[in-house]
Amino acid sequence: MSLVPLKPDLPVFLRPYLPPDNDSKPFITLTYAQSLDSRISKGHGIRTTISHPETKTMTHYLRYHHDGILVGTGTALADDPGLNCKYNDAMDQSPRPIILNHSGKWKFNGSKLQELYEKGHGKKPIIVVSELPVDEDSSVDYLVCQSRQWSILFDKLHKEYGLKSIMVEGGANVINQLLMSSNLVNSLIITVGPVYLGEKGVSVSPAGPLQLKDVDWWKGTSDVVMCARLH
Amino acid sequence: MSLVPLKPDLPVFLRPYLPPDNDSKPFITLTYAQSLDSRISKGHGIRTTISHPETKTMTHYLRYHHDGILVGTGTALADDPGLNCKYNDAMDQSPRPIILNHSGKWKFNGSKLQELYEKGHGKKPIIVVSELPVDEDSSVDYLVCQSRQWSILFDKLHKEYGLKSIMVEGGANVINQLLMSSNLVNSLIITVGPVYLGEKGVSVSPAGPLQLKDVDWWKGTSDVVMCARLH
Repeated sequence: MSLVPLKPDLPVFLRPYLPPDNDSKPFITLTYAQSLDSRISKGHGIRTTISHPETKTMTHYLRYHHDGILVGTGTALADDPGLNCKYNDAMDQSPRPIILNHSGKWKFNGSKLQELYEKGHGKKPIIVVSELPVDEDSSVDYLVCQSRQWSILFDKLHKEYGLKSIMVEGGANVINQLLMSSNLVNSLIITVGPVYLGEKGVSVSPAGPLQLKDVDWWKGTSDVVMCARLH
Repeated sequence: MSLVPLKPDLPVFLRPYLPPDNDSKPFITLTYAQSLDSRISKGHGIRTTISHPETKTMTHYLRYHHDGILVGTGTALADDPGLNCKYNDAMDQSPRPIILNHSGKWKFNGSKLQELYEKGHGKKPIIVVSELPVDEDSSVDYLVCQSRQWSILFDKLHKEYGLKSIMVEGGANVINQLLMSSNLVNSLIITVGPVYLGEKGVSVSPAGPLQLKDVDWWKGTSDVVMCARLH
């Protein structure tokens, strides 16, 4: 599926929130699209369109600027995401997909990630596991790191795989955990779509209150995008 | 407390969403300020600042354009609100305060509403009750209407009190109910402040999904304001 053009004023708006070229620590960007009532889907496992196609283009523009892209097991299972970069037809700029798979429920075999990797349309995924599986798949890399050990995980992704920037796209558990580990997150980029998904939807809300810094808003055709820093 | 000046581009932005002069039905505006995670306060009874002072000014500008302003018992108890209009020093343009008090828990005696009314800084409140109290207070008007009978309530406010436009400011129960009675609501005006209040906060989210029409966004100093219609 092709992308609508990138809105011309988006790169200037986003630039201060994109990873720098020269950081020694991995730069972490937390990004997602939510409804007004802070839901990212209508329910667990239900793929839900919230935002305008132009913010999907923005997502691919953001992927273009990151070395890795991370999602949780739930998102991998629900969305079977491609996680590659379609911006600028720059497949070689696709980030490394990183899938949290501590439960082992997600399977690379038969996934969109496998299809894209085999076609050369996506990079080799990194699967984060609690321990190495007995039947290792040579088409993926395994990274052993316990659940919720975010600081150690980002460090390993940086040192072992050379990923200097990682974009975290969800799901709700991952986002809520990282919002409460705000010292690890460098940029927050949230699209708010003008819709309510209702109280049965999957909600993003951290365990406690959180102030943001350096806030800026961009107004799109139907959505707004908020950029901010957490520290 | 005085208001900061109204942002010069706000009246043009808001105009399509304000009550018309010549409607036979009461025009209902639903308006509130929420955090990114769709909370309107940190917890029940905790008054929480979410938005920039300029959107407080906007609230008073909206009050200037409405005949009545309605809040639920919880908000009346938690905030002890004044509900008058400070925009343009136009006390005579203050809307009639309407308090839902089916539980009878809220007391006019000793309230900010009483103080303002007695000083001539606010209009005579209308108290919505399930049945007339035995000790009627002559400083207020009573309107008998059962809880959740929104259509009947708005009709009575229009016919018995001549209120052609009513602004509903909260709290969460009232908002969630009215979002699900979307044919009754003419305009939706929501301020989103760049803060998380956390999962213990008081959440706005209707019982089911809801699409919006005629959406527009205004970008303030730190917040955005979304205007939309529900039908």
